[in-house]
Amino acid sequence: MEIVRTIREMQTRAEGLRRAGKTISIVPTMGSLHDGHVSLIKLAAEGSDEVVTTVFVNPTQFGPNEDYEHYPRDIKRDEEIAAQSGSDVLFCPEVGEMYREGYRTYVVVDDLSRVLEGSVRPAHFRGVSTVVLKLFNIVKPHIAVFGQKDVQQVAIIKRMVRDLDLEVQVVVGPIVRENDGLAISSRNAYLTPDERKRATALYRSLQQAEVAVRSGERNVREIGRKVRAVLADGSPDAVDYVAFVDPETFQERERVEPPAILLALAVRFGRTRLIDNSIIPVNETP
Amino acid sequence: MEIVRTIREMQTRAEGLRRAGKTISIVPTMGSLHDGHVSLIKLAAEGSDEVVTTVFVNPTQFGPNEDYEHYPRDIKRDEEIAAQSGSDVLFCPEVGEMYREGYRTYVVVDDLSRVLEGSVRPAHFRGVSTVVLKLFNIVKPHIAVFGQKDVQQVAIIKRMVRDLDLEVQVVVGPIVRENDGLAISSRNAYLTPDERKRATALYRSLQQAEVAVRSGERNVREIGRKVRAVLADGSPDAVDYVAFVDPETFQERERVEPPAILLALAVRFGRTRLIDNSIIPVNETP
Repeated sequence: MEIVRTIREMQTRAEGLRRAGKTISIVPTMGSLHDGHVSLIKLAAEGSDEVVTTVFVNPTQFGPNEDYEHYPRDIKRDEEIAAQSGSDVLFCPEVGEMYREGYRTYVVVDDLSRVLEGSVRPAHFRGVSTVVLKLFNIVKPHIAVFGQKDVQQVAIIKRMVRDLDLEVQVVVGPIVRENDGLAISSRNAYLTPDERKRATALYRSLQQAEVAVRSGERNVREIGRKVRAVLADGSPDAVDYVAFVDPETFQERERVEPPAILLALAVRFGRTRLIDNSIIPVNETP
Repeated sequence: MEIVRTIREMQTRAEGLRRAGKTISIVPTMGSLHDGHVSLIKLAAEGSDEVVTTVFVNPTQFGPNEDYEHYPRDIKRDEEIAAQSGSDVLFCPEVGEMYREGYRTYVVVDDLSRVLEGSVRPAHFRGVSTVVLKLFNIVKPHIAVFGQKDVQQVAIIKRMVRDLDLEVQVVVGPIVRENDGLAISSRNAYLTPDERKRATALYRSLQQAEVAVRSGERNVREIGRKVRAVLADGSPDAVDYVAFVDPETFQERERVEPPAILLALAVRFGRTRLIDNSIIPVNETP
Protein backbone atom coordinates (compact mmCIF):
# COMPACT_ATOMS: atom_id res chain seq x y z
CA MET A 1 0.00 0.00 0.00
CA GLU A 2 1.27 3.43 -0.89
CA ILE A 3 1.18 6.39 1.47
CA VAL A 4 0.35 9.68 -0.22
CA ARG A 5 0.53 12.97 1.66
CA THR A 6 0.20 15.70 -0.97
CA ILE A 7 -2.78 16.74 -3.04
CA ARG A 8 -0.68 17.03 -6.17
CA GLU A 9 0.68 13.50 -5.94
CA MET A 10 -2.78 12.08 -5.26
CA GLN A 11 -4.33 13.96 -8.19
CA THR A 12 -1.57 12.88 -10.58
CA ARG A 13 -1.99 9.26 -9.55
CA ALA A 14 -5.79 9.45 -9.87
CA GLU A 15 -5.62 11.09 -13.29
CA GLY A 16 -3.26 8.38 -14.52
CA LEU A 17 -5.55 5.62 -13.28
CA ARG A 18 -8.57 7.25 -14.90
CA ARG A 19 -6.80 7.57 -18.22
CA ALA A 20 -5.93 3.89 -18.00
CA GLY A 21 -9.62 3.12 -17.56
CA LYS A 22 -9.31 1.97 -13.93
CA THR A 23 -12.13 2.32 -11.41
CA ILE A 24 -11.21 4.26 -8.27
CA SER A 25 -13.04 4.04 -4.96
CA ILE A 26 -12.61 6.25 -1.91
CA VAL A 27 -13.25 5.45 1.75
CA PRO A 28 -13.08 8.78 3.64
CA THR A 29 -12.24 8.35 7.33
CA MET A 30 -10.88 10.30 10.27
CA GLY A 31 -8.54 7.42 11.08
CA SER A 32 -8.62 5.30 14.26
CA LEU A 33 -9.69 2.58 11.90
CA HIS A 34 -11.91 -0.10 13.41
CA ASP A 35 -14.01 -3.01 12.14
CA GLY A 36 -16.59 -0.58 10.77
CA HIS A 37 -13.97 1.00 8.51
CA VAL A 38 -12.57 -2.43 7.61
CA SER A 39 -15.99 -3.47 6.30
CA LEU A 40 -16.15 -0.31 4.15
CA ILE A 41 -12.66 -0.83 2.71
CA LYS A 42 -13.55 -4.42 1.82
CA LEU A 43 -16.78 -3.25 0.21
CA ALA A 44 -14.77 -0.70 -1.81
CA ALA A 45 -12.24 -3.33 -2.90
CA GLU A 46 -15.02 -5.53 -4.30
CA GLY A 47 -16.22 -2.89 -6.73
CA SER A 48 -13.08 -1.12 -7.91
CA ASP A 49 -9.53 -1.52 -9.20
CA GLU A 50 -7.96 0.93 -6.73
CA VAL A 51 -9.12 1.64 -3.17
CA VAL A 52 -8.00 4.94 -1.66
CA THR A 53 -8.57 5.15 2.08
CA THR A 54 -8.27 8.71 3.34
CA VAL A 55 -7.31 9.54 6.91
CA PHE A 56 -7.89 13.17 7.82
CA VAL A 57 -9.15 14.51 11.13
CA ASN A 58 -10.95 17.46 9.61
CA PRO A 59 -10.89 20.48 11.93
CA THR A 60 -13.76 22.31 10.22
CA GLN A 61 -16.32 19.69 11.19
CA PHE A 62 -15.60 20.00 14.93
CA GLY A 63 -17.32 22.65 17.03
CA PRO A 64 -15.28 24.90 19.35
CA ASN A 65 -16.11 22.76 22.42
CA GLU A 66 -15.82 19.39 20.72
CA ASP A 67 -13.06 16.79 20.78
CA TYR A 68 -10.86 17.85 17.83
CA GLU A 69 -7.71 18.07 19.95
CA HIS A 70 -8.34 14.77 21.71
CA TYR A 71 -9.76 12.80 18.82
CA PRO A 72 -7.76 9.52 18.77
CA ARG A 73 -4.94 9.45 16.20
CA ASP A 74 -2.70 6.45 15.41
CA ILE A 75 -1.54 6.62 11.82
CA LYS A 76 0.86 3.65 12.07
CA ARG A 77 -1.95 1.38 13.19
CA ASP A 78 -4.26 2.86 10.51
CA GLU A 79 -1.65 2.04 7.86
CA GLU A 80 -1.56 -1.60 8.94
CA ILE A 81 -5.32 -1.99 9.11
CA ALA A 82 -5.94 -0.26 5.77
CA ALA A 83 -3.31 -2.38 4.03
CA GLN A 84 -4.64 -5.63 5.51
CA SER A 85 -8.19 -4.72 4.50
CA GLY A 86 -7.28 -4.28 0.83
CA SER A 87 -6.59 -0.57 0.50
CA ASP A 88 -4.13 0.33 -2.29
CA VAL A 89 -3.44 3.89 -1.16
CA LEU A 90 -3.62 5.69 2.16
CA PHE A 91 -4.08 9.42 1.59
CA CYS A 92 -3.25 11.26 4.80
CA PRO A 93 -2.58 14.98 4.23
CA GLU A 94 -1.64 17.48 6.93
CA VAL A 95 -4.17 20.17 7.87
CA GLY A 96 -2.02 22.84 6.18
CA GLU A 97 -2.11 20.88 2.93
CA MET A 98 -5.91 20.80 2.90
CA TYR A 99 -6.58 24.33 4.15
CA ARG A 100 -4.03 26.75 2.78
CA GLU A 101 -3.64 30.40 3.68
CA GLY A 102 -6.69 32.45 2.82
CA TYR A 103 -8.99 29.43 2.66
CA ARG A 104 -12.63 30.54 2.61
CA THR A 105 -14.82 28.26 0.46
CA TYR A 106 -17.63 26.15 1.91
CA VAL A 107 -20.28 23.82 0.55
CA VAL A 108 -23.60 23.84 2.34
CA VAL A 109 -26.47 21.43 1.82
CA ASP A 110 -29.36 23.51 3.12
CA ASP A 111 -32.11 22.13 5.39
CA LEU A 112 -30.54 18.67 5.71
CA SER A 113 -27.57 20.23 7.53
CA ARG A 114 -29.71 22.04 10.09
CA VAL A 115 -31.75 19.25 11.67
CA LEU A 116 -30.79 16.51 14.19
CA GLU A 117 -26.97 16.39 14.35
CA GLY A 118 -26.90 19.77 12.63
CA SER A 119 -29.07 21.36 15.31
CA VAL A 120 -26.64 20.22 18.03
CA ARG A 121 -23.48 20.79 15.93
CA PRO A 122 -24.19 23.93 13.83
CA ALA A 123 -21.12 23.99 11.52
CA HIS A 124 -20.53 20.23 11.49
CA PHE A 125 -22.07 19.26 8.17
CA ARG A 126 -20.73 22.33 6.39
CA GLY A 127 -17.31 20.98 7.35
CA VAL A 128 -18.21 17.46 6.26
CA SER A 129 -19.66 18.32 2.84
CA THR A 130 -16.78 20.69 2.10
CA VAL A 131 -14.02 18.24 2.98
CA VAL A 132 -15.74 15.38 1.16
CA LEU A 133 -16.03 17.51 -1.99
CA LYS A 134 -12.33 18.37 -1.68
CA LEU A 135 -11.44 14.69 -1.25
CA PHE A 136 -13.54 13.83 -4.32
CA ASN A 137 -11.66 16.46 -6.33
CA ILE A 138 -8.34 15.10 -5.11
CA VAL A 139 -8.96 11.35 -5.35
CA LYS A 140 -11.31 11.52 -8.39
CA PRO A 141 -13.27 8.43 -7.37
CA HIS A 142 -15.97 6.62 -9.33
CA ILE A 143 -17.28 5.10 -6.09
CA ALA A 144 -17.41 6.53 -2.57
CA VAL A 145 -18.13 4.30 0.39
CA PHE A 146 -19.64 5.62 3.61
CA GLY A 147 -21.04 3.89 6.68
CA GLN A 148 -24.72 3.96 7.56
CA LYS A 149 -23.81 4.78 11.15
CA ASP A 150 -23.47 8.43 10.08
CA VAL A 151 -26.80 8.29 8.31
CA GLN A 152 -27.36 12.04 8.08
CA GLN A 153 -23.90 12.49 6.60
CA VAL A 154 -24.81 9.89 3.98
CA ALA A 155 -28.02 11.74 3.06
CA ILE A 156 -26.12 15.02 2.79
CA ILE A 157 -23.35 13.57 0.62
CA LYS A 158 -25.89 11.90 -1.67
CA ARG A 159 -27.76 15.18 -2.04
CA MET A 160 -24.51 17.08 -2.71
CA VAL A 161 -23.45 14.53 -5.34
CA ARG A 162 -26.78 14.88 -7.16
CA ASP A 163 -26.95 18.67 -6.88
CA LEU A 164 -23.36 19.35 -7.97
CA ASP A 165 -23.49 16.83 -10.85
CA LEU A 166 -20.64 14.75 -9.43
CA GLU A 167 -20.19 11.46 -11.25
CA VAL A 168 -19.61 9.52 -8.06
CA GLN A 169 -21.62 6.50 -7.00
CA VAL A 170 -22.30 6.63 -3.26
CA VAL A 171 -22.26 3.17 -1.67
CA VAL A 172 -23.44 2.74 1.92
CA GLY A 173 -22.09 -0.02 4.16
CA PRO A 174 -24.24 -1.39 7.00
CA ILE A 175 -23.58 -0.53 10.65
CA VAL A 176 -21.05 -2.89 12.23
CA ARG A 177 -21.81 -3.75 15.85
CA GLU A 178 -20.06 -5.29 18.84
CA ASN A 179 -21.41 -8.63 20.06
CA ASP A 180 -23.75 -6.86 22.48
CA GLY A 181 -25.10 -4.60 19.71
CA LEU A 182 -23.22 -1.36 20.38
CA ALA A 183 -22.42 0.29 17.06
CA ILE A 184 -18.65 0.43 16.60
CA SER A 185 -17.31 3.99 16.82
CA SER A 186 -13.95 5.58 17.53
CA ARG A 187 -15.66 7.51 20.30
CA ASN A 188 -16.60 4.32 22.17
CA ALA A 189 -13.04 4.43 23.54
CA TYR A 190 -14.08 7.42 25.66
CA LEU A 191 -16.65 5.34 27.61
CA THR A 192 -15.94 4.14 31.16
CA PRO A 193 -16.64 0.40 31.70
CA ASP A 194 -19.94 1.29 33.39
CA GLU A 195 -21.00 3.67 30.59
CA ARG A 196 -19.99 1.04 28.05
CA LYS A 197 -22.48 -1.41 29.60
CA ARG A 198 -25.28 1.14 29.79
CA ALA A 199 -24.66 2.19 26.16
CA THR A 200 -26.12 -1.10 24.87
CA ALA A 201 -29.51 0.52 25.51
CA LEU A 202 -29.21 2.33 22.15
CA TYR A 203 -29.29 -0.84 20.08
CA ARG A 204 -31.92 -2.45 22.26
CA SER A 205 -34.17 0.58 21.81
CA LEU A 206 -33.77 0.37 18.01
CA GLN A 207 -34.70 -3.29 18.11
CA GLN A 208 -37.76 -2.44 20.19
CA ALA A 209 -38.85 0.02 17.51
CA GLU A 210 -38.25 -2.51 14.74
CA VAL A 211 -40.43 -5.05 16.55
CA ALA A 212 -43.18 -2.47 17.07
CA VAL A 213 -43.23 -1.47 13.38
CA ARG A 214 -43.17 -5.09 12.27
CA SER A 215 -46.13 -5.84 14.50
CA GLY A 216 -48.10 -3.08 12.79
CA GLU A 217 -47.63 -0.06 15.08
CA ARG A 218 -47.85 3.11 12.96
CA ASN A 219 -48.03 5.76 15.66
CA VAL A 220 -44.70 7.55 15.95
CA ARG A 221 -45.40 8.83 19.47
CA GLU A 222 -46.24 5.37 20.70
CA ILE A 223 -43.04 3.89 19.28
CA GLY A 224 -41.09 6.87 20.63
CA ARG A 225 -42.38 6.14 24.14
CA LYS A 226 -41.17 2.54 23.88
CA VAL A 227 -37.78 3.64 22.57
CA ARG A 228 -37.34 6.15 25.37
CA ALA A 229 -38.35 3.53 27.95
CA VAL A 230 -35.60 1.17 26.76
CA LEU A 231 -33.09 4.01 26.63
CA ALA A 232 -34.00 4.91 30.23
CA ASP A 233 -32.81 1.40 31.25
CA GLY A 234 -29.32 2.57 30.36
CA SER A 235 -29.65 5.68 32.55
CA PRO A 236 -28.18 8.00 29.90
CA ASP A 237 -27.01 11.41 31.09
CA ALA A 238 -28.94 13.04 28.25
CA VAL A 239 -31.08 12.04 25.29
CA ASP A 240 -30.34 14.62 22.58
CA TYR A 241 -32.98 13.26 20.22
CA VAL A 242 -35.16 10.31 19.31
CA ALA A 243 -36.23 11.22 15.79
CA PHE A 244 -38.49 9.56 13.25
CA VAL A 245 -37.73 11.09 9.86
CA ASP A 246 -37.86 10.54 6.11
CA PRO A 247 -34.61 8.69 5.24
CA GLU A 248 -33.87 11.05 2.32
CA THR A 249 -35.15 14.49 3.27
CA PHE A 250 -34.86 14.08 7.05
CA GLN A 251 -38.24 15.75 7.45
CA GLU A 252 -40.03 14.66 10.61
CA ARG A 253 -42.66 12.02 10.13
CA GLU A 254 -45.93 12.14 12.04
CA ARG A 255 -46.78 8.56 11.13
CA VAL A 256 -44.90 5.44 10.11
CA GLU A 257 -45.47 5.06 6.37
CA PRO A 258 -44.11 2.83 3.58
CA PRO A 259 -41.57 2.22 2.23
CA ALA A 260 -39.37 2.98 5.27
CA ILE A 261 -38.80 5.23 8.24
CA LEU A 262 -35.50 6.30 9.75
CA LEU A 263 -35.18 6.20 13.53
CA ALA A 264 -32.13 8.20 14.63
CA LEU A 265 -30.81 8.50 18.18
CA ALA A 266 -28.25 10.67 19.92
CA VAL A 267 -27.57 9.93 23.58
CA ARG A 268 -24.93 11.05 26.07
CA PHE A 269 -23.16 8.90 28.63
CA GLY A 270 -20.93 11.08 30.76
CA ARG A 271 -19.09 13.33 28.34
CA THR A 272 -19.43 10.91 25.45
CA ARG A 273 -22.08 11.43 22.82
CA LEU A 274 -23.19 8.36 20.88
CA ILE A 275 -25.38 8.13 17.78
CA ASP A 276 -27.12 5.15 16.24
CA ASN A 277 -29.95 4.58 13.79
CA SER A 278 -32.08 2.12 11.92
CA ILE A 279 -33.83 2.46 8.58
CA ILE A 280 -36.92 0.38 9.30
CA PRO A 281 -38.75 -1.08 6.30
CA VAL A 282 -42.48 -0.43 6.43
CA ASN A 283 -45.00 -2.69 4.67
CA GLU A 284 -48.26 -1.45 3.25
CA THR A 285 -50.84 -1.93 5.98
CA PRO A 286 -53.47 -4.46 4.97
CA MET B 1 -20.73 23.22 -33.67
CA GLU B 2 -22.76 20.80 -31.61
CA ILE B 3 -25.64 21.83 -29.41
CA VAL B 4 -25.85 19.90 -26.14
CA ARG B 5 -28.78 20.31 -23.78
CA THR B 6 -28.43 17.56 -21.18
CA ILE B 7 -25.91 17.12 -18.40
CA ARG B 8 -25.47 13.44 -19.17
CA GLU B 9 -24.61 14.00 -22.84
CA MET B 10 -22.16 16.77 -21.95
CA GLN B 11 -20.44 14.65 -19.27
CA THR B 12 -20.14 11.65 -21.58
CA ARG B 13 -18.63 13.80 -24.31
CA ALA B 14 -16.22 15.45 -21.87
CA GLU B 15 -15.13 12.13 -20.37
CA GLY B 16 -14.43 10.76 -23.84
CA LEU B 17 -12.33 13.77 -24.78
CA ARG B 18 -10.36 13.55 -21.53
CA ARG B 19 -9.63 9.87 -22.06
CA ALA B 20 -8.39 10.73 -25.55
CA GLY B 21 -5.99 13.24 -23.99
CA LYS B 22 -7.75 16.32 -25.40
CA THR B 23 -7.71 19.70 -23.65
CA ILE B 24 -11.15 21.13 -22.90
CA SER B 25 -11.89 24.78 -22.26
CA ILE B 26 -15.11 26.33 -21.01
CA VAL B 27 -16.49 29.83 -21.56
CA PRO B 28 -19.44 30.23 -19.17
CA THR B 29 -21.94 32.87 -20.32
CA MET B 30 -25.55 33.93 -19.81
CA GLY B 31 -25.95 34.24 -23.58
CA SER B 32 -26.70 37.46 -25.49
CA LEU B 33 -23.21 36.97 -26.82
CA HIS B 34 -21.36 40.14 -27.77
CA ASP B 35 -17.81 41.11 -28.73
CA GLY B 36 -16.67 40.61 -25.14
CA HIS B 37 -17.74 36.95 -25.24
CA VAL B 38 -16.29 36.57 -28.74
CA SER B 39 -12.88 37.61 -27.42
CA LEU B 40 -13.14 35.01 -24.62
CA ILE B 41 -14.16 32.22 -27.01
CA LYS B 42 -11.22 33.06 -29.27
CA LEU B 43 -8.90 33.08 -26.26
CA ALA B 44 -10.23 29.65 -25.26
CA ALA B 45 -9.76 28.27 -28.78
CA GLU B 46 -6.09 29.27 -28.77
CA GLY B 47 -5.29 27.13 -25.74
CA SER B 48 -7.44 24.02 -26.10
CA ASP B 49 -8.63 21.28 -28.42
CA GLU B 50 -12.32 21.69 -27.61
CA VAL B 51 -14.12 24.91 -26.65
CA VAL B 52 -17.40 24.54 -24.82
CA THR B 53 -19.41 27.76 -24.62
CA THR B 54 -22.18 27.52 -22.07
CA VAL B 55 -25.34 29.62 -22.27
CA PHE B 56 -27.41 29.54 -19.11
CA VAL B 57 -29.31 32.43 -17.56
CA ASN B 58 -28.82 31.25 -14.00
CA PRO B 59 -31.83 32.15 -11.82
CA THR B 60 -29.99 31.71 -8.50
CA GLN B 61 -27.64 34.62 -9.15
CA PHE B 62 -30.45 37.13 -9.65
CA GLY B 63 -32.03 38.93 -6.69
CA PRO B 64 -35.83 39.03 -6.30
CA ASN B 65 -36.06 42.55 -7.77
CA GLU B 66 -33.47 42.06 -10.48
CA ASP B 67 -33.84 41.49 -14.21
CA TYR B 68 -33.98 37.67 -14.44
CA GLU B 69 -37.28 37.66 -16.32
CA HIS B 70 -36.23 40.41 -18.71
CA TYR B 71 -32.61 39.42 -19.20
CA PRO B 72 -32.11 39.34 -23.00
CA ARG B 73 -32.27 35.84 -24.53
CA ASP B 74 -31.60 34.96 -28.19
CA ILE B 75 -30.24 31.44 -28.46
CA LYS B 76 -30.32 31.30 -32.28
CA ARG B 77 -28.09 34.36 -32.50
CA ASP B 78 -25.87 32.95 -29.72
CA GLU B 79 -25.44 29.73 -31.71
CA GLU B 80 -24.26 31.67 -34.75
CA ILE B 81 -21.85 33.86 -32.85
CA ALA B 82 -20.39 30.98 -30.82
CA ALA B 83 -19.86 28.87 -33.94
CA GLN B 84 -18.25 31.76 -35.85
CA SER B 85 -15.94 32.50 -32.93
CA GLY B 86 -14.55 28.96 -32.81
CA SER B 87 -16.71 27.21 -30.25
CA ASP B 88 -17.01 23.44 -30.75
CA VAL B 89 -19.96 22.89 -28.43
CA LEU B 90 -22.76 25.07 -27.16
CA PHE B 91 -24.08 23.72 -23.86
CA CYS B 92 -27.47 25.29 -23.15
CA PRO B 93 -29.44 23.36 -20.51
CA GLU B 94 -32.93 24.27 -19.32
CA VAL B 95 -33.35 25.51 -15.74
CA GLY B 96 -35.05 22.24 -14.75
CA GLU B 97 -32.03 20.28 -15.99
CA MET B 98 -29.64 22.25 -13.79
CA TYR B 99 -31.81 22.52 -10.67
CA ARG B 100 -33.82 19.35 -10.15
CA GLU B 101 -36.48 18.76 -7.55
CA GLY B 102 -35.16 19.02 -4.01
CA TYR B 103 -32.08 21.01 -5.05
CA ARG B 104 -30.39 22.53 -1.99
CA THR B 105 -26.60 22.64 -2.32
CA TYR B 106 -24.66 25.90 -2.45
CA VAL B 107 -21.01 26.91 -2.61
CA VAL B 108 -20.06 30.05 -0.78
CA VAL B 109 -16.73 31.87 -0.94
CA ASP B 110 -16.82 33.78 2.34
CA ASP B 111 -15.79 37.44 2.69
CA LEU B 112 -15.13 37.93 -1.03
CA SER B 113 -18.83 37.37 -1.71
CA ARG B 114 -20.01 39.98 0.79
CA VAL B 115 -18.25 43.15 -0.34
CA LEU B 116 -18.92 45.50 -3.29
CA GLU B 117 -21.28 43.69 -5.69
CA GLY B 118 -22.06 41.24 -2.90
CA SER B 119 -23.16 44.02 -0.55
CA VAL B 120 -25.67 45.28 -3.13
CA ARG B 121 -26.64 41.81 -4.39
CA PRO B 122 -26.59 39.52 -1.32
CA ALA B 123 -27.12 36.05 -2.88
CA HIS B 124 -25.52 36.89 -6.24
CA PHE B 125 -22.09 35.33 -5.79
CA ARG B 126 -23.45 32.27 -4.02
CA GLY B 127 -25.43 31.67 -7.21
CA VAL B 128 -22.38 32.34 -9.39
CA SER B 129 -19.90 30.10 -7.55
CA THR B 130 -22.45 27.29 -7.32
CA VAL B 131 -23.39 27.31 -11.00
CA VAL B 132 -19.77 27.61 -12.10
CA LEU B 133 -18.82 24.60 -9.97
CA LYS B 134 -21.72 22.66 -11.51
CA LEU B 135 -20.61 23.67 -15.01
CA PHE B 136 -17.06 22.58 -14.21
CA ASN B 137 -18.36 19.18 -13.07
CA ILE B 138 -20.43 18.85 -16.23
CA VAL B 139 -17.94 20.13 -18.83
CA LYS B 140 -14.79 18.86 -17.03
CA PRO B 141 -12.59 21.64 -18.43
CA HIS B 142 -8.83 22.02 -18.10
CA ILE B 143 -9.16 25.75 -18.79
CA ALA B 144 -11.94 28.19 -17.85
CA VAL B 145 -12.09 31.63 -19.46
CA PHE B 146 -13.77 34.59 -17.77
CA GLY B 147 -13.83 38.29 -18.57
CA GLN B 148 -12.15 40.87 -16.39
CA LYS B 149 -15.27 43.01 -16.58
CA ASP B 150 -16.74 40.88 -13.78
CA VAL B 151 -13.58 41.23 -11.75
CA GLN B 152 -15.06 40.20 -8.41
CA GLN B 153 -16.52 37.09 -9.99
CA VAL B 154 -13.04 36.26 -11.31
CA ALA B 155 -11.50 36.63 -7.84
CA ILE B 156 -14.21 34.41 -6.32
CA ILE B 157 -13.85 31.70 -8.96
CA LYS B 158 -10.06 31.70 -8.59
CA ARG B 159 -10.40 31.36 -4.82
CA MET B 160 -12.97 28.55 -5.19
CA VAL B 161 -10.74 26.69 -7.64
CA ARG B 162 -7.80 26.86 -5.24
CA ASP B 163 -9.84 26.01 -2.14
CA LEU B 164 -11.72 23.07 -3.65
CA ASP B 165 -8.62 21.60 -5.35
CA LEU B 166 -10.13 21.89 -8.81
CA GLU B 167 -7.62 21.21 -11.55
CA VAL B 168 -8.87 24.05 -13.71
CA GLN B 169 -6.69 26.86 -15.00
CA VAL B 170 -8.59 30.15 -14.81
CA VAL B 171 -7.76 32.47 -17.72
CA VAL B 172 -8.95 36.08 -17.66
CA GLY B 173 -9.68 37.99 -20.85
CA PRO B 174 -9.33 41.81 -20.89
CA ILE B 175 -12.35 44.12 -20.91
CA VAL B 176 -13.61 44.80 -24.43
CA ARG B 177 -14.86 48.35 -24.97
CA GLU B 178 -16.90 50.28 -27.49
CA ASN B 179 -15.07 53.00 -29.45
CA ASP B 180 -15.99 55.59 -26.84
CA GLY B 181 -14.70 53.41 -24.01
CA LEU B 182 -17.93 51.97 -22.60
CA ALA B 183 -17.31 48.39 -21.47
CA ILE B 184 -19.41 46.02 -23.58
CA SER B 185 -22.22 44.42 -21.58
CA SER B 186 -25.53 42.76 -22.37
CA ARG B 187 -27.13 45.26 -20.02
CA ASN B 188 -26.00 48.24 -22.18
CA ALA B 189 -29.05 47.44 -24.33
CA TYR B 190 -31.24 48.77 -21.49
CA LEU B 191 -29.74 52.28 -21.78
CA THR B 192 -31.65 55.12 -23.47
CA PRO B 193 -29.61 57.08 -26.09
CA ASP B 194 -29.07 59.87 -23.55
CA GLU B 195 -27.99 57.45 -20.78
CA ARG B 196 -25.73 55.68 -23.26
CA LYS B 197 -23.84 58.97 -23.87
CA ARG B 198 -23.57 59.80 -20.17
CA ALA B 199 -22.33 56.26 -19.40
CA THR B 200 -18.98 56.99 -21.04
CA ALA B 201 -18.12 58.76 -17.79
CA LEU B 202 -17.24 55.36 -16.25
CA TYR B 203 -14.32 54.71 -18.54
CA ARG B 204 -13.16 58.33 -18.44
CA SER B 205 -13.10 58.21 -14.65
CA LEU B 206 -10.98 55.02 -14.72
CA GLN B 207 -8.55 56.71 -17.12
CA GLN B 208 -8.38 59.71 -14.79
CA ALA B 209 -7.39 57.38 -11.93
CA GLU B 210 -4.77 55.63 -14.07
CA VAL B 211 -3.23 58.97 -14.95
CA ALA B 212 -3.18 60.03 -11.31
CA VAL B 213 -1.48 56.83 -10.16
CA ARG B 214 1.03 57.01 -13.01
CA SER B 215 1.90 60.57 -12.02
CA GLY B 216 2.69 59.40 -8.48
CA GLU B 217 -0.54 60.04 -6.56
CA ARG B 218 -0.80 57.48 -3.72
CA ASN B 219 -3.68 58.93 -1.73
CA VAL B 220 -6.81 56.88 -2.29
CA ARG B 221 -9.16 59.68 -1.15
CA GLU B 222 -7.55 62.15 -3.53
CA ILE B 223 -7.91 59.79 -6.48
CA GLY B 224 -11.45 58.95 -5.38
CA ARG B 225 -12.38 62.65 -5.50
CA LYS B 226 -11.09 62.88 -9.06
CA VAL B 227 -12.96 59.76 -10.11
CA ARG B 228 -16.20 61.01 -8.61
CA ALA B 229 -15.74 64.39 -10.31
CA VAL B 230 -15.48 62.73 -13.73
CA LEU B 231 -18.43 60.44 -12.96
CA ALA B 232 -20.47 63.53 -11.99
CA ASP B 233 -19.99 64.80 -15.58
CA GLY B 234 -22.21 61.92 -16.68
CA SER B 235 -24.94 62.89 -14.17
CA PRO B 236 -25.46 59.31 -12.97
CA ASP B 237 -28.64 58.59 -11.06
CA ALA B 238 -26.62 56.84 -8.36
CA VAL B 239 -23.03 55.91 -7.63
CA ASP B 240 -23.21 52.56 -5.78
CA TYR B 241 -19.49 52.46 -5.10
CA VAL B 242 -16.07 53.77 -6.07
CA ALA B 243 -13.79 51.22 -4.42
CA PHE B 244 -10.04 50.88 -4.17
CA VAL B 245 -9.27 47.31 -3.12
CA ASP B 246 -6.67 44.57 -3.17
CA PRO B 247 -7.18 42.74 -6.50
CA GLU B 248 -7.13 39.30 -4.83
CA THR B 249 -8.69 39.68 -1.40
CA PHE B 250 -10.91 42.67 -2.21
CA GLN B 251 -9.95 44.23 1.09
CA GLU B 252 -10.19 48.03 1.02
CA ARG B 253 -6.90 49.83 0.53
CA GLU B 254 -6.11 53.01 2.41
CA ARG B 255 -3.20 53.81 0.16
CA VAL B 256 -2.10 52.98 -3.37
CA GLU B 257 0.68 50.41 -3.02
CA PRO B 258 2.67 48.15 -5.38
CA PRO B 259 2.24 45.94 -7.25
CA ALA B 260 -1.32 46.99 -8.23
CA ILE B 261 -4.60 48.37 -7.02
CA LEU B 262 -8.07 47.54 -8.27
CA LEU B 263 -10.47 50.41 -8.85
CA ALA B 264 -14.03 49.09 -9.17
CA LEU B 265 -17.11 51.15 -10.01
CA ALA B 266 -20.85 50.56 -9.96
CA VAL B 267 -23.06 53.35 -11.26
CA ARG B 268 -26.73 53.62 -12.17
CA PHE B 269 -28.22 55.41 -15.14
CA GLY B 270 -32.00 55.30 -14.92
CA ARG B 271 -32.84 51.72 -14.02
CA THR B 272 -29.65 50.32 -15.50
CA ARG B 273 -26.74 49.43 -13.28
CA LEU B 274 -23.30 49.40 -14.91
CA ILE B 275 -20.00 48.14 -13.52
CA ASP B 276 -16.48 48.73 -14.73
CA ASN B 277 -12.99 48.39 -13.29
CA SER B 278 -9.29 48.77 -13.82
CA ILE B 279 -6.41 46.91 -12.22
CA ILE B 280 -3.87 49.72 -12.11
CA PRO B 281 -0.19 48.72 -11.93
CA VAL B 282 1.68 50.58 -9.19
CA ASN B 283 5.44 51.17 -9.34
CA GLU B 284 7.63 51.37 -6.28
CA THR B 285 7.83 55.04 -5.38
CA PRO B 286 11.36 56.36 -5.73
